[in-house]
Amino acid sequence: MIYLDNAATSWPKPQSVIQVMSDVIKRGCANPGRSAHSMARQADDAVFHTREVLAEFFNINDPMRIVYMPNTTYALNAAIYGVVRNGMKVATTAMEHNSVLRPLNTLQNKGIIDLVVIQPDKLGRITVQSLRKTLKKGIDLFCMTLSSNVTGVIMPVAEAGKLCKTHSITYLVDAAQGAGVIPIDVESMNIDLLAFPGHKGLLGPQGIAGLYVRDGIDIKPFIQGGTGSFSDSLFQPEIFPDILESGTLNVPGIMGLGKGVSFIRDIGISNIQLKKQHLIEILFNGLGKVSDISIYSPPPEQNSGIFAMSIQDLDSTEVGYLLDRKFGICTRAGFHCAPLAHQSLGTADRGLVRISPGYFNDETEIELTIKAIKSIVNRI
Amino acid sequence: MIYLDNAATSWPKPQSVIQVMSDVIKRGCANPGRSAHSMARQADDAVFHTREVLAEFFNINDPMRIVYMPNTTYALNAAIYGVVRNGMKVATTAMEHNSVLRPLNTLQNKGIIDLVVIQPDKLGRITVQSLRKTLKKGIDLFCMTLSSNVTGVIMPVAEAGKLCKTHSITYLVDAAQGAGVIPIDVESMNIDLLAFPGHKGLLGPQGIAGLYVRDGIDIKPFIQGGTGSFSDSLFQPEIFPDILESGTLNVPGIMGLGKGVSFIRDIGISNIQLKKQHLIEILFNGLGKVSDISIYSPPPEQNSGIFAMSIQDLDSTEVGYLLDRKFGICTRAGFHCAPLAHQSLGTADRGLVRISPGYFNDETEIELTIKAIKSIVNRI
Repeated sequence: MIYLDNAATSWPKPQSVIQVMSDVIKRGCANPGRSAHSMARQADDAVFHTREVLAEFFNINDPMRIVYMPNTTYALNAAIYGVVRNGMKVATTAMEHNSVLRPLNTLQNKGIIDLVVIQPDKLGRITVQSLRKTLKKGIDLFCMTLSSNVTGVIMPVAEAGKLCKTHSITYLVDAAQGAGVIPIDVESMNIDLLAFPGHKGLLGPQGIAGLYVRDGIDIKPFIQGGTGSFSDSLFQPEIFPDILESGTLNVPGIMGLGKGVSFIRDIGISNIQLKKQHLIEILFNGLGKVSDISIYSPPPEQNSGIFAMSIQDLDSTEVGYLLDRKFGICTRAGFHCAPLAHQSLGTADRGLVRISPGYFNDETEIELTIKAIKSIVNRI
Repeated sequence: MIYLDNAATSWPKPQSVIQVMSDVIKRGCANPGRSAHSMARQADDAVFHTREVLAEFFNINDPMRIVYMPNTTYALNAAIYGVVRNGMKVATTAMEHNSVLRPLNTLQNKGIIDLVVIQPDKLGRITVQSLRKTLKKGIDLFCMTLSSNVTGVIMPVAEAGKLCKTHSITYLVDAAQGAGVIPIDVESMNIDLLAFPGHKGLLGPQGIAGLYVRDGIDIKPFIQGGTGSFSDSLFQPEIFPDILESGTLNVPGIMGLGKGVSFIRDIGISNIQLKKQHLIEILFNGLGKVSDISIYSPPPEQNSGIFAMSIQDLDSTEVGYLLDRKFGICTRAGFHCAPLAHQSLGTADRGLVRISPGYFNDETEIELTIKAIKSIVNRI
């Protein structure tokens, strides 16, 4: 099997992630922040350690401003519903995932916000020019993805951050695609809210994600519940991370995530980015000149690690099916929960085949994939 | 180390839970419901299989009415915020956890609901008589715990269900304490919404929980995001489980939970209940007649597996500290995120020491604990 679906979830995981998760579930993992016994304190320490690792990784000053979330969708909903107030004007882009588009459209539909959607160019890129046109005084919140989950195109995150800072716009970045590949610095990029998954580029397990909230951002709790703090209060505490972190945490997941990020730090994120770019380049070289193939992804240096393509007018799911059944190659065909992106790219009818290599793929696997796709093309 | 904090999180886990989680993180675990390749289909199958295991366990007709949640607090928030409408009258009890009390108090504070809190008797019990007084026409929603997380007292869940059915009250049960120990049948108990954790009595890992929603209950989505279904729609689908299940699922957690519940099914839930009752009985026999000890838990047959106690007017955290440091015994001292319960029990000043044995504890461990507590009493 050749696994090329790392944009959905990364596989394999580093040995250290596998090891810590196997160990913790066996050795024991008490409930952190609740009890005071030795096993609970060990869980506490592990939970805090991962916060520190993440804070260093994203250049976040205070680890306590990182809130654990079950997945990026929850993180984005907690951010959006947490900061939106009645009458706000919110901007986003047509390249967003449904985890941003659906809450924002729901809020607009209820008359709570006024929503502006920035359109990409034909290659799915959000230009700095189009950002300048929209990100002005009057916009309260701007939500943008770090990189498209359909094409892999890296967005001008730092440029948007500057504009948001200038015009006092709260800036939410969806790092579902790209965290762990593209360096993120919440300070230099002026990011106010950063939602990130544990199980994709950060090489941790499913079931854990995070949300960074800059000090000073006015955010309401998304859920209310036990925090192990201020137990005598009938209301949610306002301190971080408790304000947004209720109920039992996924400690094995948090420990796995810590090891995933440490692995990236040890390898060097730039080496991971270079490896992905190299594999994407091989795909461009191998398939770029095949006349029946259309490529929707930008060149490697503008790309977080996705090669999106179609073969003539074949339905993408048919191509994905053939790659899996005939060649044992795992990709993701379809619409990738990003309806407006596919509209912009003109692929809303048949979808795209998304090939997303990971750090652990090698050149041979990519060459075999090129061969497989060419043989599908030749059979038409 | 003697682990007696199973009401916080159960430990150890069955061998089958440890095994499946180690395997899945190593062998690979694609993103279910998103891609169509073989590895994603395996994840799909595992996710559905656990739904079936849970449905059988709780006598739920349709497994698709079970929604995976990251923890019980999220499940309770999704249930409460999903069904509450402006002007509703909601009833609950003073024995609830902050995961119920905090959202309900927040909603009352905003003027959205009118909240009625049923008081327990001096032993923390909610009587059928007090339920009858409150659960009448005019109440829209009733939230009650299956068993107190402070004292272990089992609540009259079936009796409340009958009253709710008679008066068309939506009935939400918080099964955080007791699922996996006390048999739950959503049909015979007339439960409309059941929130349950994976990592306590069900013997699965942290990071996974569930919410059952009866067909016909009018519930709004709590979050909106990618569901892998209706990808071209900018709004949340209304089908189950997608309406309440967005973003990448915790597949290793779900597989672990499936094995945990299967373990209980194989042992027989009544044998688990009997074992816990037996261990609680040993505690009653060993400590019941010590004059400096006050016991706040009901006798074994009314108890889900908690022995809550205090020593004279010693602060509970001091006792918990001594048990841990001097004897290596893990318990939970303090207020257990249940402020009104401690008020009702008269322990809001010093808290209680909660001893919660699990299926894997043995008589020797309990005898050693009794000895340790007696030696603390003798030292005062």
